[in-house]
Amino acid sequence: MTTSSSKAEATRTRILDAALELFRRQGVESSRMRVIAGEAGDYLGSAYYYFESKEDLVMAFYERAIEAMIPGMEDALASSDSFEGRVAAIMKVKFEYFRPNRAFLGALFRHAADPQNRLSPFSEATRSIREVAPTYFARSMSAKSGSLKVPKDLAAHLPKMLWLYQMGLILYWIYDRSPHQQRTQRLVTASLSLIVAGLSLARFALLKPLRTKIVELIVLAENEHGHA
Amino acid sequence: MTTSSSKAEATRTRILDAALELFRRQGVESSRMRVIAGEAGDYLGSAYYYFESKEDLVMAFYERAIEAMIPGMEDALASSDSFEGRVAAIMKVKFEYFRPNRAFLGALFRHAADPQNRLSPFSEATRSIREVAPTYFARSMSAKSGSLKVPKDLAAHLPKMLWLYQMGLILYWIYDRSPHQQRTQRLVTASLSLIVAGLSLARFALLKPLRTKIVELIVLAENEHGHA
Repeated sequence: MTTSSSKAEATRTRILDAALELFRRQGVESSRMRVIAGEAGDYLGSAYYYFESKEDLVMAFYERAIEAMIPGMEDALASSDSFEGRVAAIMKVKFEYFRPNRAFLGALFRHAADPQNRLSPFSEATRSIREVAPTYFARSMSAKSGSLKVPKDLAAHLPKMLWLYQMGLILYWIYDRSPHQQRTQRLVTASLSLIVAGLSLARFALLKPLRTKIVELIVLAENEHGHA
Repeated sequence: MTTSSSKAEATRTRILDAALELFRRQGVESSRMRVIAGEAGDYLGSAYYYFESKEDLVMAFYERAIEAMIPGMEDALASSDSFEGRVAAIMKVKFEYFRPNRAFLGALFRHAADPQNRLSPFSEATRSIREVAPTYFARSMSAKSGSLKVPKDLAAHLPKMLWLYQMGLILYWIYDRSPHQQRTQRLVTASLSLIVAGLSLARFALLKPLRTKIVELIVLAENEHGHA
C-alpha cells in the first residue's frame, strides 16, 4: 500500500467512525452528512468524496462488520465439532460485534422488509454482502462428527435458510430488553435444538412429501426474492 | 342509541376517515393532528376529544378493520369445508380490506418488531385486537370434512401460530410489487400446502420428539412475548 492510499484509507476510516458514533448517539434519520464531516474533522468536504450519502456509510458499516468478524467466525467454526455448537458460536460472534450498535441496527431493520430499499438485507445493493454470510453456515454443516446427514435436495438450500434464521434471531435480539438478552439466548438454544431434530428426521421416507414441499417453497421464495 | 351519541359517533367516524385519507396521501409520520382536524371540518378542535394522538387514530383504524371484516370472515369460514380453503379465504378477505391502505400499513409495520411500540401488533396496547384474530383461525381448524386431525398439544397453540403466519404473509404482501400481488398468492398456496402436509404427519410417533420441541419453542416464545 502506498503512503497516499493508506492515508486515504485512514481518512475514510475516520469518517466512517465519526458517522457510526453519530448514528449511535442520535440515530440514522437525524444525522446529517455535513455534521458527520464536521465530527470527522473534515472541513475540506472530502467526506463526500468517500461517501456520497448516508446510505453509503451504512453499506460501509455492513462491509466493515463482515470483515471484522472473519477471525471470530473462523474461531467459532473451529470451536465445536457439532453443527449446533458451531451455529451457536457464530451467533455469539455476531451478537458481540453488534452489541454497541443495537439501537442503530434497529433503525436499519425498519427498512428490512422492503427489498427495494437499498439498505434492506434483501436489496440488490446488499446482494454481495448477503452472499458472504451463508458460507459460514455452509461450513457449520460439514461438522467432523458427521452427525448431520441432510438429504441433498434440502442441503442445497440450507445455508441460505440458516442465514434467514439468523436474521430472525438478530431482529428478536434487537428488541430483547431482558438482562444480557437472556431471552434471545434461550431462543437460540431451543430453536437450534428444533432444527437439529428436524434435520435428523428429514431423511425418513415418511417425511419425503413434506421435504419436497419445503424445498418447493424455498425455491419459490428464492426465485421471487428481490424481484430478480 | 340516542341522537347525541349517534351524532358523536358520526363526528368520530368523520375524523377517523379524514385521518386515514391523510395517512394514505402523505404517510403517518408527516400527518399532523391539527391538519387532520382541519380536513375533517372540525374547527372546534373536538378531534382531540375523540383522539388524543395519532396513535389513537391508528388504534381506531385497527379496531374498525376488525369490525368491518367480520361479515367477510364469516363468509370465508362458510365458503369451504377444508382447513386450507378456509384459511386461504380468510387471507383473501384481509388483503381485499387492506388493499387501499397498503402503503400506510407498511409504515405501521416498520414498528412491528418492537413490542414496546404501542402500535406494534405485539404490544400491550394491541393485546385485545391480537386476541380476536386467532379465533377465526381456531374456527378454520374445525372443518366439517374432519381431515385435520392435529394432536392436542400442538392444536392448543395452532390458532396463535396461524395468526403469526398471516402476519408474515401480510408483511410479504405489503412489499409485493408483482401485478395483483400474484407472488403473495403463490406463497399462500405453497405455504398452506406445506402446513397441511406438516399437520397431517404430526400425529406419527416418529415425529413426537420434533413436535415436543416445537411446542416447547412456542411456549417459550409465548411466555416471553411482549415481556409479559
